[in-house]
Order: sequence, then C-alpha cells, then structure tokens
Amino acid sequence: MRQSKLFTKTQKFAPKDEQSNNAKLLIRAGFIHKEMAGVYSYLPLGLRVIEKIKQIAREEMQKIDSEEIIMSGLQSKQIWQKSNRWDDETVDVWFKSKLKNGNEVGFGWSHEEPITNMMINHINSHKDLPVSVFQFQTKLRNEERAKSGIIRGREFIMKDMYSFCKSKQELEEYYQRAIVAYNKFYQRVGIGEDTHVVFASGGAFTEFSHEFQTITEIGEDIVFKVPNKDRYLNQEIVSLKIQTPQDKDEEKKQMQEVLGEGLIGVEVLAKFLNIDVKKTTKTILFETDDERVVAVAIRGDRDIDESKLKRVLKVEWVRLLDAQKVTELTDAEVGYAGMLNLPESIEKYWDYSTQGRINFEMGANKTNYHNINVNFGVDLDEPEEFFDLAEAIDGDIDPNSGEKYETYKTSEVGNIFNFGTDKGEVMGLSFVDEDEKTKPVYLGSYGIGITRVMGVVVEKFSDEKGIVWPESIAPFQVHLINIGEDKKAEELYKLLETEGVEVLWDDRDKRPGEKFADSDLIGIPYRVIISDKSITNGGVEIKERSKDESKIVSIEELISIFKK
Amino acid sequence: MRQSKLFTKTQKFAPKDEQSNNAKLLIRAGFIHKEMAGVYSYLPLGLRVIEKIKQIAREEMQKIDSEEIIMSGLQSKQIWQKSNRWDDETVDVWFKSKLKNGNEVGFGWSHEEPITNMMINHINSHKDLPVSVFQFQTKLRNEERAKSGIIRGREFIMKDMYSFCKSKQELEEYYQRAIVAYNKFYQRVGIGEDTHVVFASGGAFTEFSHEFQTITEIGEDIVFKVPNKDRYLNQEIVSLKIQTPQDKDEEKKQMQEVLGEGLIGVEVLAKFLNIDVKKTTKTILFETDDERVVAVAIRGDRDIDESKLKRVLKVEWVRLLDAQKVTELTDAEVGYAGMLNLPESIEKYWDYSTQGRINFEMGANKTNYHNINVNFGVDLDEPEEFFDLAEAIDGDIDPNSGEKYETYKTSEVGNIFNFGTDKGEVMGLSFVDEDEKTKPVYLGSYGIGITRVMGVVVEKFSDEKGIVWPESIAPFQVHLINIGEDKKAEELYKLLETEGVEVLWDDRDKRPGEKFADSDLIGIPYRVIISDKSITNGGVEIKERSKDESKIVSIEELISIFKK
Repeated sequence: MRQSKLFTKTQKFAPKDEQSNNAKLLIRAGFIHKEMAGVYSYLPLGLRVIEKIKQIAREEMQKIDSEEIIMSGLQSKQIWQKSNRWDDETVDVWFKSKLKNGNEVGFGWSHEEPITNMMINHINSHKDLPVSVFQFQTKLRNEERAKSGIIRGREFIMKDMYSFCKSKQELEEYYQRAIVAYNKFYQRVGIGEDTHVVFASGGAFTEFSHEFQTITEIGEDIVFKVPNKDRYLNQEIVSLKIQTPQDKDEEKKQMQEVLGEGLIGVEVLAKFLNIDVKKTTKTILFETDDERVVAVAIRGDRDIDESKLKRVLKVEWVRLLDAQKVTELTDAEVGYAGMLNLPESIEKYWDYSTQGRINFEMGANKTNYHNINVNFGVDLDEPEEFFDLAEAIDGDIDPNSGEKYETYKTSEVGNIFNFGTDKGEVMGLSFVDEDEKTKPVYLGSYGIGITRVMGVVVEKFSDEKGIVWPESIAPFQVHLINIGEDKKAEELYKLLETEGVEVLWDDRDKRPGEKFADSDLIGIPYRVIISDKSITNGGVEIKERSKDESKIVSIEELISIFKK
Repeated sequence: MRQSKLFTKTQKFAPKDEQSNNAKLLIRAGFIHKEMAGVYSYLPLGLRVIEKIKQIAREEMQKIDSEEIIMSGLQSKQIWQKSNRWDDETVDVWFKSKLKNGNEVGFGWSHEEPITNMMINHINSHKDLPVSVFQFQTKLRNEERAKSGIIRGREFIMKDMYSFCKSKQELEEYYQRAIVAYNKFYQRVGIGEDTHVVFASGGAFTEFSHEFQTITEIGEDIVFKVPNKDRYLNQEIVSLKIQTPQDKDEEKKQMQEVLGEGLIGVEVLAKFLNIDVKKTTKTILFETDDERVVAVAIRGDRDIDESKLKRVLKVEWVRLLDAQKVTELTDAEVGYAGMLNLPESIEKYWDYSTQGRINFEMGANKTNYHNINVNFGVDLDEPEEFFDLAEAIDGDIDPNSGEKYETYKTSEVGNIFNFGTDKGEVMGLSFVDEDEKTKPVYLGSYGIGITRVMGVVVEKFSDEKGIVWPESIAPFQVHLINIGEDKKAEELYKLLETEGVEVLWDDRDKRPGEKFADSDLIGIPYRVIISDKSITNGGVEIKERSKDESKIVSIEELISIFKK
C-alpha cells in the first residue's frame, strides 16, 4: 500500500485523557481512534493487526475441530434468567436497554448462556457429541473503570469458544487440546515466551480453572511461581501457612482492655499500643449466600482473600456484613470486633497467621476499646484448626518447599473453564446416551481477548520511539522508504507486491527524518531504504525495527528474504 | 467439509413465531438461529455466506479506493448531539444505556456522525482529500416491528461507506463511481438483474438520493418505473397531477351544511351523502419545524405524501397537528376540518386532485357537519396554485407521458446519499484549501445491508424444497453425496478439496432420500452423487440445484468444471 493513500496521519500527541501507553502509541501511530474511555475504533492499520491475530486464532481453533459461528450481540433476558445471571447483583457489567414493547434486552458481555441455549436445537444424541464452536465477538461490558487502553475495554473483541462433551473424560481431553492450541496461539502472535498457564480457582465441578497470563510491567494481575517448579498460580490459590515469629521466652501477661479512640489502621494502633504490628488482629464479619455469619481473624498486617474464604466455607459468595448488623452482633461500631465473646451463632475462622502468638491484641467488641495481651488457652480456647485465608503478597513463602514464591506482574490474555454439567443442567442442554438415558452435556469455555492481546503486544515490545510489532501480526512486513529515487522505489514496491510481500511504501513528499520517525512509531518489522547512496552501495538498506544496525542487500537478496 | 462434522442439524419446522420465509428456510437448513424477533445468530453455513457477501463488497469498495476500518458500537451522546440526532424524537430507533458514572451511551444504529468526527483528526488540508472509508458493522436498531426475518433486523450487518471530498464536483464523481461499484456488487451476488437504482428524495443539498431496490414478491417497498424509460422512482418522488373526471354539464348547486354524525371513512361519507367518493375532500392540518400551521386538502380517496409536503414547504419535518390544537383552530373535533373559514394564520395547500371539481364536499369546521356542493369561485376563491402532494399508488399516471407507471414490490438492498457540506458543517469537519481558506468537507454516505441481501437472495431464489444459492455466495460449491461407496466418495472428496473446490460431503449414515431432502433444503448449487450406478455409468451424477435434469460426467470432467 502507498502511504500517501493511507488516510490516517501520525500524531505528535495522544488525547490528554488517555493514560495507557498502548492506546497512546496506537492513537499517535494511527491504528485506533478513541471514542470514549475504554471504547476504541480500529483504523486501517489497526484493523490489519486485528485480522491477523484473529486469523491465527481461527487456524488454531479449527485445528482442534472447532466450528466458527457468530452469535448476536442483543441477548434475551429469559435465557440469562435460567442461570440466574441476568440480575445486576450477580453480573455487574451488563449494559441493558428496552425494546419498544417495553421488554428488556441485554448486550452480550458473554455468550455462554445463549450458545448453550442455541445448542439445544442441535444436540440430541451422543452421536452429536463432542462439538466445539467459536466466534470472534464484540463484547460490551459496563466496566467501572477503563484506564488500560485496549487492554481492558468497555467494548472489545473476544475469541470465545465452547466445547460440548458427553463425559467428564471427553471434556478433560478437549480441555487439554485447548491448552495446547492456546499455547500455540500465544507463540504465534509473539508473546509465547512470557505467557504462562496459570492455575486459578475452579467452580463447583473442578478444582482449577486456567488463565493464560503474560508477564508485563503494566500488568493488572500478579502471579506466583512455585519455587523450583514450572507451575504458576493465580493469587487466589497460592497456598500459604503464614508463620508469626515468636519470642519463646515472652511471658503471658494478663489481658487488659485499653481505650484507643479513632485509631485508623493497624500501624497506628500498634504504635499507640507500643506493640509489634504482628501482635495486632483484624476480625472481619462476613455473610454468605447460605445465610451464615462468619467471623474471620487474621494477623493485623495481612488481608483476607475472599476467594479462599469462599472455598473454605463452600459457598458461592461472601460479603462484608453491613455496619448495622456488625453493631447488632458485636455491640460495637465497625472496627472494634474481636473473637472474644462473639455470639455462638457466628462461626469463627482463624488464619494460620494468628497461630502461636502470645500477648496479642484484638478488638474488644466495645466501641473504641481493644483487648491487649490476649492469649490462647488463657483468655480463649486454642482454636482446633487454623485455615489458609490470607491474600498472598510478594515475599510469601511456599509452605511445601519453605522457599519464596517468585511473583510477576501480568496481563491475563486468555482463560479456560470447565463447567462440568452445571451449565448444561441449568440451561436444559442434555443428550440421549448409548444406554438411552438422558444426561446433561459437559461444557467447557475458552476465551482469548483479541484486542487485549494486541494491547499487551504493544506494551511489551514498544520502545521510546514507538511500537515494535512481531512479524506475525504486523500490519505490513516491510516499510519501504525512498530518499529521492521515486522511480526505483516504485519499481521495487511493485516487485515486492508481485512477490506477495506486504509492503507499505512511504511515497509521501516528506523529509527523511519525518519518514523515519513515522516508521519507528508505526513499528513495521523491517525498514527498507532506497536512496542514491544505497544504490551506489549495491542495493537497499535493510534494518529491523527491533535492532540498531542496518545492512545493504541487493534487490535479489531482499526478495529472497521476504518471498512467501 | 464432512457433513458429519457440521454440528447443525436440519429441522422439519421453524419456530412457530417466525413469519418470514427467509428466516424459516435459513433456520430449518441450519444457517441461522433465532435469538428473538429480528435478532439472529449465524451458524457455520450462514457465516460462510455472510463472509462471501462481505468479501465481494470489500473487493468492490477497495476498487474505488475505499479503506476498511471498524468503528465502535458504543457511541457518544456528545457527538450525536452536535447534529441534533441524539434525541429519540428525531431518531426513533436508538438503543441507549448508561455507564456506571451515569452518563448515557448509545448503540450504533448508524455511524455517520462518529466517522465524521473521527475524520477531524485526519483531514486538515486539501491534500488529504478525497478519502473514502468503509466498514462492516453490526448495527442495532430498536425497530417497532421485526417480522421480515433477516431482511429487517433489530441487529444486522451493514457495509457502510463514507466519502469525504473537497468540492461538489469531486463528490459527484465519487458518487457516480459508487453507483457503478454497487451495481457490480449486486451483479456478483446474483441479484443484479432485478436490482435497480431508484431515485429517492434528497436533502437540503441535493435533489435526489438513490436507493438500490430489488424486485421481490415479499418486498416492503414499492417502486414506480417511468413509462418507456429505464428510470425507477421511489414512491415519495413520483410526479403526479391527479385529474378528477368531471361532468361538464353538471350545474353548480348551492352550498349546504349537512349533519353527518360518526361517519368513519370517506366511502361511508360518500354513501351517506349519496355522492361520488371523488367529490369528498380530506383536509388535514400539519405543524412544521419552523412553527407554521398548514392545511392540506386532497381528494377524499387519496392520501397525502408527507415527504412531498415537506419538499413543497421546504421544512425538515411535518407532523399532524394534535387534536386539541385542531379543535382550537377549527372550532370542531378532528374529522370535520375544511378549507372554508379557516383562520388566516393557517397556510392552505390544495392537491391537484382537488382541481376542477364541481359541487364537492368538505368538512364544515363544525363538529358532525359537512359542507356539500362547495364550488370554487362561488363559495371560496379558486386557489392560485395546486400542488403535487398525493401519495402515489398502483395505477397512477405519469403526467409527462400520460401513461401508467409500472409498479414493483421491492426490497431496499442499498442506498446512497449526498450530504453536501451539511454534515461537515455541523460536525466541524473542514479543510484548508489551496487558497488557504478553511472550507467544510463534502460528505457522501453509502450503505449495503449485508444480511438483508442474504435474506433477499433466499426469498428470490428459494423453491418449495428449500434454498437455491447463487454460486458466488453459496456456502459450498458442491454437495457431494454418496450412496454406499464410502471409499470412492472419500477419494473424490479429497481430490476436490485438493483442487480447491469448496465441497460439503454428506458422509452421514443416512438414507439417500434424507440426504437429498437435506441437500435441497441447504441449497448448494451443484449436487454430485457417487453410487454403484453412477460408477457403472462412467462416473458421477451431477445436478444443478436450480434444474431438474442431471447428467453423468467422469471424475476428470467434474474436476475441470470446478477447478479454480
């Protein structure tokens, strides 16, 4: 393509309200246009990248026998009500509107339910299984915040795939094939080396789901590598048994009630009480979906991981108990709860970090008061069991090896999930098996954020001059730049096009410096310069975007490098 | 593709609530799935058709130098407010929702405003023009009714293109190129012969816009062919000078006020008054966007075309005056307005159909009363001018030739519109010309309904057995069916695939009758049967879907027919 025909212009500045590096670069280079926070349009260069990423995903999904479809964006309330996911309480990213007749419609943030529902028409017998379908869908999610450019959009393109199987084993096998296909995809788009399969919490049916996380400086997530193993964990499932160092000679003192008014934060509290922060205790009250009230005690300097708590309690959700109920149950304002003297009806859970401590602090269940010098076996019974309820942080120790977990900032570029028969059961998707019995279908769900992958690639490979595209998803392979020598450049341009090389020819009447700066910003993998000087030296100058050195090659050599 | 691997099943029946033939067939054949009225998902066969139609459109748009982009579906209120098209009063098909911060967002029903706004970043100088961009976009429109299957959806795919030019002439030239490209597109997808460029009303800038209308039985539109000319007109712009036959010997009688209570419709009124219906008069009061009140009189058996009225009045919109205002101005309930004794402030317009009548009827501006035997020159002045304000109907006469217009039921498969500088001016899109003056950009807009074209093709070419796809957009070229002879069929299947022929092989273990019925329903252009009998006869049996006869050809002949 001739650059003079490309309508987009590079820009010196991105919009002032744009915070993310990926969107700033993509806007400046003319790949995308910002419509509003988290909503971008894709201009010719951007669309070329998207289509390349999609094509790689398409090929890998077709290799594992998945069939491409495209579902509607408008979605039916009735279908989502079946699985109890229509409610804004359950799913907080819905965009909804109303038809003229007053009926509500939703805008697809996910397609698990509609696809499962559609499959009812096409799956009857065990002979119809397994089936896998995928689509490239524009998802709309009403995100609270959208500050990460195209990495977390309110509107984004997702490759979502769904597998339908007749048995647990068939699903497991397909799930493993999908992991292989996903790894292949990340390899091909250029981020394979830094993309890891990460174990995350599963659902009712399966212990783990899996995420694909790419290590990157701007990552919103944190993953933990198990010491000496090629195993990566999502924060939620990092096993911890937090130890609290304890002076064994310390004598148990008499418990005491201390007035400590308006102390915000454990650090301030510890200082006020003149104790180590590790002696403080947070006691948090939760309610659950099965209407239990639970008190959790954790060492003051640590936080509770609600996902861990849900798994320990075997519930769908936990929620902080509201202030009024806390006061009813503890006789104190929020902030002064402690495990002593709580009503019997409240279940009590202690994190490992509270084990073995002497003379520790706890809320006194009395507004503005704290108990200090609390001791197990004296002031309250030693708990029968301690639990792993703490949110993992950098520096935490793997209880198996005793070594530190390595941690990485990452962006999630894919995830896969084994629903077992849950989704099939609620949606009414079943099949008649060989034994003539009707059984629910096993469902797996597999997602790749296409636009997110594009954003992560930009973040990872850009430098101070602009974007550096991997060859496989670059909008063009060659950026041809002429300095003078229009005619020879045109001949070379036509020759490259004839040979099937994707070439952007900067045929604009601009200074070389401006052309080079634009070229660095746009980030096409190979820059080829044709000039009097290069011709005198025997051909054209070729330079990789990611490298500093260039070399002179003959036209024949150039063609042989790129010929398909 | 092996049909055993295609997850969709043909179905004997379409959903009960589906009324349109196109959707019934497409659902039964497994091309689409109905999500709700006017909302469909596209399954593997359907997606293949869509992609082929898109590719043909893409090629034709690229040939006229248009660049592909993809805009966002979520749209900004602020942008649409600039052109005064955010309001539901102005645009009645908006889907809207709210962001978490309470701001409204729209879901794209059109992209003229966002694209024009985006272009502000890329158009500065006359050197940047002309530019044309296009996209394949999923549009969402909150249609009151959606009963035409994929021909009029609440969600549908549109190819929309926008041209930006520096002068009227440049735009006119591009507009003509677009007409040529569009005609080429309709030819290539198989409906060229029955698709006509139809003149429709333009806007402030241009007399006409153009529609592409395909003649089809189920068409929602009606187009008028000018007698003896290859010129097709949209109903709104059909010139009429409706004559009312008049007995010249009839004597003018004395006007009389007649009580006629609760007479609904002119037929009933004429019968009650014992006069020809052509002597009755409808007097309708309108208000306009420039706050005029207008009374229009038309012969009782005809209707007013509001589009014609708008052009005569040179206004953006006209609206029926509400009942209360009618009563205030006429001293009568709605239904009894007449042109006699109306307040001076009301402008009066007479349709040609009211010209030359004697002893005609009119409302008396008095509830339940009608004037009869009204005469121009006696009871009221002969109007200085009569206007063409009547809605054209089948049988109407072209005033130029005196011959009847031919009329056709059609479906609109595309439209193009010349905005002149209007849109550029309201959106603030301008350029610096060679004379260093800042001037507004000229905008053209060009749409093709991709899914609608698919639906029209199905309607036009289907028969009682199923769909009949044109070769260019068929999901596959060849439907290979074996009767026994699995091995030879597999060899042939592989051979065809190797030769690049798109082939669906029905390798299922089904009776021949069932395979043939499915094949007719799916509608692939060529059916190739391989059986003992065909082999004995020298090869395979080939039959076109659209024809009854079949013939035996050798494998070599078969390959040579389809080889690319």
